[in-house]
Parts: sequence; C-alpha cells; structure tokens
Amino acid sequence: MAVGLTEPSSLASVKGIRLASVAAGIKKNSKKDLVLIEMSASTECAAMFTQNRFCAAPVTLAKQHLADTRPRYLLINSGNANAGTGEQGMRDATRCCEMLAQQTGCNLQQVLPFSTGVIGQNLPLEKFEAAMPELIKQLSEDHWFEAAHGIMTTDTLLKGISRQIEIQGKTVTVTGLSKGAGMIQPNMATMLSFIATDAAISKSFLQRILKTAVDLSFNSITVDSDTSTNDACVLMATGEAGNPEIDRLGSDYEQLFNVICEVCQYLAQAIIRDAEGATKFITLQVNSARSINEARQVAYTVAHSPLVKTAMFASDPNWGRILAAVGRSGVDFDIDRIRIYLGDVCIVSNGGRDPAYTEEQGQSVMSQQDIPVLIDLDSGNESATIWTSDLSYDYVKINAEYRT
Amino acid sequence: MAVGLTEPSSLASVKGIRLASVAAGIKKNSKKDLVLIEMSASTECAAMFTQNRFCAAPVTLAKQHLADTRPRYLLINSGNANAGTGEQGMRDATRCCEMLAQQTGCNLQQVLPFSTGVIGQNLPLEKFEAAMPELIKQLSEDHWFEAAHGIMTTDTLLKGISRQIEIQGKTVTVTGLSKGAGMIQPNMATMLSFIATDAAISKSFLQRILKTAVDLSFNSITVDSDTSTNDACVLMATGEAGNPEIDRLGSDYEQLFNVICEVCQYLAQAIIRDAEGATKFITLQVNSARSINEARQVAYTVAHSPLVKTAMFASDPNWGRILAAVGRSGVDFDIDRIRIYLGDVCIVSNGGRDPAYTEEQGQSVMSQQDIPVLIDLDSGNESATIWTSDLSYDYVKINAEYRT
Repeated sequence: MAVGLTEPSSLASVKGIRLASVAAGIKKNSKKDLVLIEMSASTECAAMFTQNRFCAAPVTLAKQHLADTRPRYLLINSGNANAGTGEQGMRDATRCCEMLAQQTGCNLQQVLPFSTGVIGQNLPLEKFEAAMPELIKQLSEDHWFEAAHGIMTTDTLLKGISRQIEIQGKTVTVTGLSKGAGMIQPNMATMLSFIATDAAISKSFLQRILKTAVDLSFNSITVDSDTSTNDACVLMATGEAGNPEIDRLGSDYEQLFNVICEVCQYLAQAIIRDAEGATKFITLQVNSARSINEARQVAYTVAHSPLVKTAMFASDPNWGRILAAVGRSGVDFDIDRIRIYLGDVCIVSNGGRDPAYTEEQGQSVMSQQDIPVLIDLDSGNESATIWTSDLSYDYVKINAEYRT
Repeated sequence: MAVGLTEPSSLASVKGIRLASVAAGIKKNSKKDLVLIEMSASTECAAMFTQNRFCAAPVTLAKQHLADTRPRYLLINSGNANAGTGEQGMRDATRCCEMLAQQTGCNLQQVLPFSTGVIGQNLPLEKFEAAMPELIKQLSEDHWFEAAHGIMTTDTLLKGISRQIEIQGKTVTVTGLSKGAGMIQPNMATMLSFIATDAAISKSFLQRILKTAVDLSFNSITVDSDTSTNDACVLMATGEAGNPEIDRLGSDYEQLFNVICEVCQYLAQAIIRDAEGATKFITLQVNSARSINEARQVAYTVAHSPLVKTAMFASDPNWGRILAAVGRSGVDFDIDRIRIYLGDVCIVSNGGRDPAYTEEQGQSVMSQQDIPVLIDLDSGNESATIWTSDLSYDYVKINAEYRT
C-alpha cells in the first residue's frame, strides 16, 4: 500500500558498524523483533529523542547512558514499547542492558536501549535472556537488511537508504534505517531511525548535523499529530573512512551535512509514503510567511485537518477545506493577498476562488498519488515544507484493530 | 446513528419570535433550506461569530449590521456557505438582505444573514428571490420545528430544546436550535445556533450571558478540530415575559444564565452526539490543572488524537494512547502525580498503569456509548470539560463522499 515507495535493492555496509537481528518471540507473529547494532571503539554517536512527557523507560535510560559515556551498542526491540510502565519499566530496560554488557564485556552505560510497539505492557525479560547469545553471534557488517526488518511494526515495507560521497579523496558512506507508520508527529526525532557513516567528525559537529537534518526531515512529517512516547534518532560516525576529522564549518562539513540531510529526508518521507492507510503523499509548502514557526503552524494545521485528509483520500479538489484550515491556523495574514496552489493550479486568490480556476484542473492534480500544495501568505520571507498522508478507511481499520 | 440523542417531542414558542422555512432549491435534495426568524421591535439580540480568518461573507455582513442597528430578521440558508467567495460573496449576501428589506419594509441593516453548506460556490440569488414571498407568508410563532429542519446539513436529526423558569412570578421561556455535525471545533460559537427567550434583559447583560454560556458549551466541543468559516450563535430576548428588566447581577441574572447555559450545553452536546460517523459520546474532564487554558489544552490534545478516537470507535481500552496524548500536549506536569480514569476505573497512576487495573474493567467502560475520561494533573486548582466523538469508518465515508 506504500505510496510511490519500494524497498531498497541494496544497503552499503559502513566500516566499524556490525548488526544482528533475531526473532526472540516478543512479537506474536514470529518475525524478527530484537536488533543489535555494534559500534567500533572510535565511533562518535549523536542522538535525539521524543519530547513526549510520558517518554518511555528506554528513552529515559538511553539519554542517561549517552550523557555518561561513549556507547558501543544499540539494543532495539519491536513488539513492545516499554512505555507507561513506571518504575518496573526502568528496571526492565536496565536489566536488558546488563544482560548484553555481561556477555560482551562492556559497561552497562555503553548500551543504549530502544523499544517500539504496544504501550503499557512489561518487557518479557526471559525472551531477551534466551535470545541474547544468538543475537551477539549473528553480528555482521552485512546485516543492514536484517536489522531493518527487526525494527518494523505496522510498516508494510522496510525503509533504508545508502549514499556515498568523496571527502578529501576518501569515500564516505552513509547508510540509514527508519521505521514508523502511525503515532507520527515526531518532535525532535521519529519513531526509530538509525543512521551510520564512516566519516571522521567531532562529536559536537556530528550533533549539529543531526539537529539540523532532523529539523528538515523527521521533524517535518506528520501522519496523525500523535507524537510517540518512544521516538529516537541516532547518528553514528565510526571515523574509519580515513578523511581528516571534520571539526569546523566548511566544504567538508557542508558535503557531509547535505548527504546526511538527504538520507534523513528520504527516510522521513518513506515513513509518510508507508503511513497507516496512506493512498496519497502530500507536500505542504508555505512561502512568504513572517517566520518559520508561522509557516510551520499553517502547514501543520492543514496537515492535521481530518476534512482536508479525507478530501485527499477521495481525490476531491475540495479546496474550501484547505482555505478553512489556513483560516483557523491562528496565524495572522491578509486574506486578500494569500494564494493557494494545487500543483501548478492556482485555486485561491483575492480572498476567494481564483477566477481562472476550473474543477477539471483541480481534479487532474488530486488524481495523482503525489499532491503538492503551495500556500503563499505574501507577508514575509520565511518558508517551511512538511509532508503528510491522507485519512482513509484503512487508517481507521488499522488503528481500531491494532490490539485485536 | 446519533449517540443517545432523540429529536425533541415539542418546542415551546417564544412570545415575540416568529419563524418560517421553505425549500427554495438551494439544496439538491428538495429539503427545506431557507429559514427566516422575525424578532419583535423590542427584542435585544446578542451574537458571537467564528474566529476563522477566512470567515464567510454573511458572517462579515452580519457583524457589520449588528453593530449598526437593532436587528429584526435573521435570514438563514443551508446548502451553500457563501464562504471563500470574495467580493462576489459580499455583494450576494447584501442582495439577499435587500430583497427581504424591500418586502418587509425594514432597513437593510436590520437583516442578519447566515449561510451553511459547501464552501466556494456563489449563492443562487434567483432562488432566494423566488422563495422570498412564500417565506414571509409562512411566519408563525409555532414554526420552531420547521426552522430546525431548514438549517440542517449533514445532521441526521434536528436539535432543539425548550426550558421554562419563573422570574419574579413571570414565566420565562427559552427555546434554542442548533445544527452541525462536522467541521466542528467552534471558536466563539458553533456552526449555527439560534436561541430565543422572552425574558426582559438589557443588551449588555444579554451579551454577558451569551459569552459565558458559549464558553461552557459550544466552545467546549470538537468533532475534528476544523473551525468552520461560518460559525454563529445568536441569542434573542424579546422582553415579552413581563419580568422586570434584568440590568444587574443577582438572582434573576443567575437564574436566566443557568437556564440559557443549560440550553447551550444541551445543543452543543447534541452536535457531538450527532457528529459525523459518531458511535461514542466522550466527556473529557481535566482537573487540578494550573490554569483553565492548560486544562483545555490537555483535553483538546486527547480529543483530537486520531489514535484515541479510533480506539474509542473500537471500544478498545488502549489507555496507552490517552497517556501518550496527554504527554505530548505541551503542558508541564509531574508524570508521577497524574491519575487518569476511564469512568470510575483508575487506569494510570505513578507514571504507569495503575497496579489494580485490569483489562476487563477498562473494557466494561469502553463498551458503553457514553465514555467519561478524567485526567487529574494534581498540579493546581483549575479544571475544564470538553466533549467529543470517535473516529469511525463512517466519518471517513461521509467526508470523502461529501460532494459526490
């Protein structure tokens, strides 16, 4: 059902990163549900986490561990979010890290835990315990596909991408994975995304790249306005590509930033293309706003409107719903100056329907799978772009039947 | 399909108010679509309108007329919102008022126009012209039901209520109508509501009652977060009950306020019970917040969550979704102190699932049509209550097929 998205045919390995995935029995359907990512000792790691006040136990613990030391392992399970589990949840997440530390000889703090799945159930620790030896044994530089499968929940296909560039004559690889299809309005990072590069870069500049790239990708998508309790995005840099360490702004930084931003945008858009029940991929661009925040506020108001989303599902050029959503966004503008376009077709000008607009023109854009909407406020110089999906019968079906 | 709501068996007439309704052919289905409400010369009139920046032409004109003079007529059509119609929309709305003024001998400014229906189409003026004589001829104190039918769009049943109280030995009647089922998160007033009383009350105190009652009723409901372009609520007081004019606070004011507030809450809740595709009526009460605004912010975040709404549709006690929505509301609180209840069942305490909670208890509440949710933030003394509906296949169906 994914909109204009297929699985990648290959994913490039990244020197210094090994991965593994097994079916530990946490999911009911015997699919892979436990993933391990190992980083070489030289790897710098940056991460961003959900801003949901009810953040899950593994998010709290991963933040603490990342502040304490340089991590060596990411331990990720799907099928159970370990969220809304109180003190027990913290004990369970800690115990999982301990198991891995004991068997690999690292410190407890060098393990970052991640969980995704149903909220409010305790982790089945005995299943982690039983699966751990095989998980460690499976570690390989070539297991990116296996890891991508292991983090999926309601995703219909795996999401991954690789890019390679040259920095100072050295080939630098970036490979990234993401998962997520519902409970998606990331606030700092999406459900789960793991991106690795072998570039050499200082930790502070790695964090800077991640922050900016995430704002332009994962923090610019929404399926249903529901910020998850478990969002996390991790960017790892092993330093094994052999390029001079990037520790200042300049062309090396720009090159690396651009390719990581491209990878993040691909992964974020892949989540929208595979959103629960999605039949359309909608790009909302707001131009000429007084501030980026106001541009985003208008875009998100339209993106969250159930009436706009159901019109998109119906391929109905019901532009009055877009106009009504813009009007209630809380942003001040002059309705006589605003222009709204569906693709290249101007639908609104001078406070109402554009005189040249015809229903046939609107219909031809709405019949596409990819629908670009441009809202020009003509009141400033800032802009923002966000991506969203439509609201279909299948969205209701998937979320009404999720636990049954 | 309405949830626990039936049509009223009777509506009391209000001395000084006459009503009429005809099928003018504005709707495609030959149902009543044009309504006239006449107020006696002594009637005070208070009104509140949508805050949507793209407010419809009739809203703009009604505000201007109300500021200019004491109105005698409300002219209301369904089937066409006259919104997003620019300058032509203003000319059309003015022309409709003119037609009525010419045939009744009042001033143009004494007519307030209201429209509801599809956005972005011009009014069929010739149909107004043709229907006007019959509309005026039909005016009667007994035509409350006819008027209620004439303002309906996707409503499945008519919404009206009457209440009578004694003030200083005089019987005072309050009768109110409302319509609306989708594009409902009123901001100042709901789609359309008309309430009349024969109480004698000064204009400033009438406006005060309307503002407070609307905040506690129409401004506390949401179907889909989509504030309409055409919301309006009008409160008329003919003064013919014979009570001493209410021109100060005190027990007479309190009595009248209480009964008007009761009428407004009934009409607002009726909109939610008849919301597009609704199978559940959900009451969200937030207690012990630091401010009313924060309490409302938490309540609306939960009310607008598509994941909470689909879980409600499925009668699934998926309390993790409520917890996640509260957590992303942007309101600061201590997650260890918050408590969340489904009916009488405590589901969340101490940052996670309440130890005594069982799935069977949650299921028994979720199986009801009326579902009360209480969120206690334990961080202050303010509270707020809002009402909302669930998200069903039929909501998608109704809004995907609205124009076909």
